[in-house]
This record gives sequence, C-alpha cells and structure tokens, in this order.
Amino acid sequence: MNSGPRQIVRWESGAAPVRALDELAGEEPLEIRIDNKPVSVTMRTPGHDDELAAGLLLSEGLIRRQEQILKIAHHPRHRGQNVVGVFLAPDTEVDLRRLDRHFPVSSSCGLCGKTSIASVRQRFPSVKTKVTVAASILLRLPETLRERQSDFDRTGGLHAAGLFEASGRLLVAREDVGRHNAVDKVLGHALLNGWIPLRRHVLFVSGRVSFEIVQKALAGGIPVIAAVSAPTSLAVEMARSGGQTLVGFVRGRRLNVYAHAGRVKFD
Amino acid sequence: MNSGPRQIVRWESGAAPVRALDELAGEEPLEIRIDNKPVSVTMRTPGHDDELAAGLLLSEGLIRRQEQILKIAHHPRHRGQNVVGVFLAPDTEVDLRRLDRHFPVSSSCGLCGKTSIASVRQRFPSVKTKVTVAASILLRLPETLRERQSDFDRTGGLHAAGLFEASGRLLVAREDVGRHNAVDKVLGHALLNGWIPLRRHVLFVSGRVSFEIVQKALAGGIPVIAAVSAPTSLAVEMARSGGQTLVGFVRGRRLNVYAHAGRVKFD
Repeated sequence: MNSGPRQIVRWESGAAPVRALDELAGEEPLEIRIDNKPVSVTMRTPGHDDELAAGLLLSEGLIRRQEQILKIAHHPRHRGQNVVGVFLAPDTEVDLRRLDRHFPVSSSCGLCGKTSIASVRQRFPSVKTKVTVAASILLRLPETLRERQSDFDRTGGLHAAGLFEASGRLLVAREDVGRHNAVDKVLGHALLNGWIPLRRHVLFVSGRVSFEIVQKALAGGIPVIAAVSAPTSLAVEMARSGGQTLVGFVRGRRLNVYAHAGRVKFD
Repeated sequence: MNSGPRQIVRWESGAAPVRALDELAGEEPLEIRIDNKPVSVTMRTPGHDDELAAGLLLSEGLIRRQEQILKIAHHPRHRGQNVVGVFLAPDTEVDLRRLDRHFPVSSSCGLCGKTSIASVRQRFPSVKTKVTVAASILLRLPETLRERQSDFDRTGGLHAAGLFEASGRLLVAREDVGRHNAVDKVLGHALLNGWIPLRRHVLFVSGRVSFEIVQKALAGGIPVIAAVSAPTSLAVEMARSGGQTLVGFVRGRRLNVYAHAGRVKFD
C-alpha cells in the first residue's frame, strides 16, 4: 500500500528541524481496458486492481454477475502494473458511455439531484431485505476495521472500506487514496467471489458518505451503509429512495441514523 | 452550504434513540457549459459556482487569465442553479478534450506516475519565486481557516481550502463536499480577481494531498501547499518536479515538509 520511505523534514515548534524517513501512501494511474479497449483512467493506490476494475464495472451497472467476467489481468507488455484488462463473457454486452462520468447526462431536462437519483434507480432496484443490525454492533465496526489495517494505513494516509456481516464479522477490508476506489475494491472482491447481491451485509467507510458511495452500495444490493463521518444531503435522499439504511458519525458510544432506521435494533 | 434540517435518529449506547433535526452538507450535480456546449458534470456543494467553473478551466490548463472569460452565469432556463455557462473571449480557443479526465491519455506508452507528471509539466511551468514562509505561520493556518468556516462546516461535513499570503493572512476560504472542488473554487476566485499567478501565496487544505491538488496549485503558480493530513507519493513527486514546497500533517506544534523545504524558515 505504501511506496517506500522518502526523505522529509520534521519540525516541532521550539526545536530544530530534523531529517527523517517517512512512508507515503502510493498513488499511480490505472488504465482499465474492456476486451482490449481502454475505457477509463483513474488515480489509485496500487494493489487489488482486479477488484477495483470489477467493482467499477459493477457500480456503474455494466455487469451484475461473476460469470460475466472471463478474466481480469494486468497487461503483460506494460511495466508498473498500471494497465488492467477485463475480458467479458461472449454474451455480455456493455454500454461503455456509462463509464464516462464527465459525459453530460442531461442537457435538456432540469439537471438536479432528483434526476441523478432517478438515473441510478433506473439501473438498480430497491433493496428489500428483512435483515436487522444491532446498534451496538455498528459501534464496533470502526475498531474492527482499524485492527485489520496495517500500521502504515493507521497513520491516516488512506481511505478504508470494509464489508461486514450483520453479526459484525469483517469479510473484506480495502484501502486506497481514493474513497470511491476503496469501496469499488470491496465490491469487486464480493463480485469475484460470487457474493452479489449482498442482501445481509453492512458497508462501512472511514470518511464521509457522498451520493456516489450510496450508489455503489445499491449496485451491490447492500442494505446498510455506515460511516465515521457525515453523509451529504443527496446521499441521504438516495438511501431513502433505494431502501437503504444510512448511519453516520459512528464514533465512540454514539451514532446517527439518516435513513431507514427500522433496520437498526437499539440494544 | 447546507441544505436545511433533516429528521434523523440519534443514539447513544445505554440510552433510548431520539428523533432530532440535523444539518447536512449540500450536494447537487453541476453541469458546466463553455459557450453553450456542455463539457462537464460534477457533484458539488452549491455556491460559488462561477468560481468552481473558472477554477476547473484554469487547473485543466484551458485558460490562464481573467481576460479570457467574458462572463460566467447560471443558465436562466434551468431551475435549481445547476447549470453554469462560461462565455469566453473571441480570441480564446480551448481544447475541450482536456476536461475529460477519464479519457485514456496514453494507450501506447508506459502509463505511470512519471508520464502523469510529464503531462502536467507540459502544460504548466515550474514555480520560481524567492518567497519564504515561517514554519510558525504555517502552524497557525488550520485555526485561521476554521475560524472563517461557519458553525455548520466545523462539524466536518465539508472539505475546506484556503488561500493565504506568506504572512498568514487569509485571502479566501471555500468549502465543498469534494476536496478538488474546494480548491477549484479558491483558484477560480483568484482568477476572477486577476490574482493569477499566485507567486507569493500558500494553499492550505483540510485533508489529504493527492496528485491532482498539487497539479491545481501548479496551474495557479502557487509555491507552497500545506495540509492537515498526508500527501501521496505522487503528490510529493509532482511537487518536487514543479518546484513547489509541500507541507503535511500541520497539527498542533508539528509539521512535516515533503518537498522544497528551503522555502520554509524554521523559527
């Protein structure tokens, strides 16, 4: 996850500056190809690139099942592991325009949060599940995720995302300089293991919750999203629309529930 | 900056859950048009959309001077203020392909961090300035930025960016759900006020420093970047290449300098 020690200058007020070695979070571009066609370049922390590619295709609605992917592999002729190819099953057709997030989705209608939600809801159905999760379990997720992280990652250089069972058991944790990438890696891991849809699971993220994080969770069918920090207004509206429980500010003995609180058992 | 109170459920371990009203950070899509052509859609916190558009064009290398922009205005026929138009001076030609960040920039060369840096360096020259900044001034920037933020923003729902003089005087502070947007708004404010290049200034951000933040600072000619959290490996390499001082973990009485420490006076 890190890229080797770098020489830096440390200073504390009142003392002389000292030279030191410091570990930094790795950041490199990744080009994703589908059947040899380049479709996306994103900055990410190297590692689990197959999961990142699979998770991105899932959360953009391009694929839905493990069987649609024949193979994911780094390009053999590119050094540095920064080109990854996804090879799809022969009967899988994808609409690549969906991968271009900067493509103007709407030039004639009233562009707003509601149309963003409607666009996502066209692709992914609501979450319908009777699973519940104890509030006391949710309080333990931050510590469980931190224990899985390496010493380096605990320094705060990376975003983390974890997929949990409702019992609080951690299934997979991933880190990245990009919050979206950490979630895509977790979703990709689930897809490649045949776990989608994740109807009895909790997605926990180390930071804030934006609209796009809720969209990604919906793509995976995840009924509960929890986070250390605050959700945005549109994230809350998206969760309410998609039938997802959204929990924020999970800190110490406290938490806030922003959507579909019925799934949380306050114990 | 916020989008009005929402009903939520607050819970503290050992007590009963209570209904409460909570303020959320606003998040809405913004479509940016250049001379009536839609070129980009990004999720942002509404407010200062003219600065966001101007800053994005500056940091992508499409424009460099205030005079290249005739006018920036919300589209009159779109409710919700989510479409903003930039009208360029007649002699200003822009390469719109640069705005599509997901366009594969390199399919034949070895895609890597070095080529990312080379691509940015083609667009923006190195920072050359004799300005220095006292380390003790840098330690005060987080508190100065926090004082400028509203009560709401202090809750941690938004990223913040501030542009400072080397004396520690704050010129402009902006917040957004997206870290890149907060920096673009600050840069756009500077561009629209005719301050570019910012050869004697410090950009301070509330979170981590990625490659793209350093790129944006270079587009503005900013010699010093400082942050509350860690930079990535590629952010450090980019700052070293562009002649920029990069300071991280500015917390309490301490800070780390990752690039061009010569501009920092340890006092």
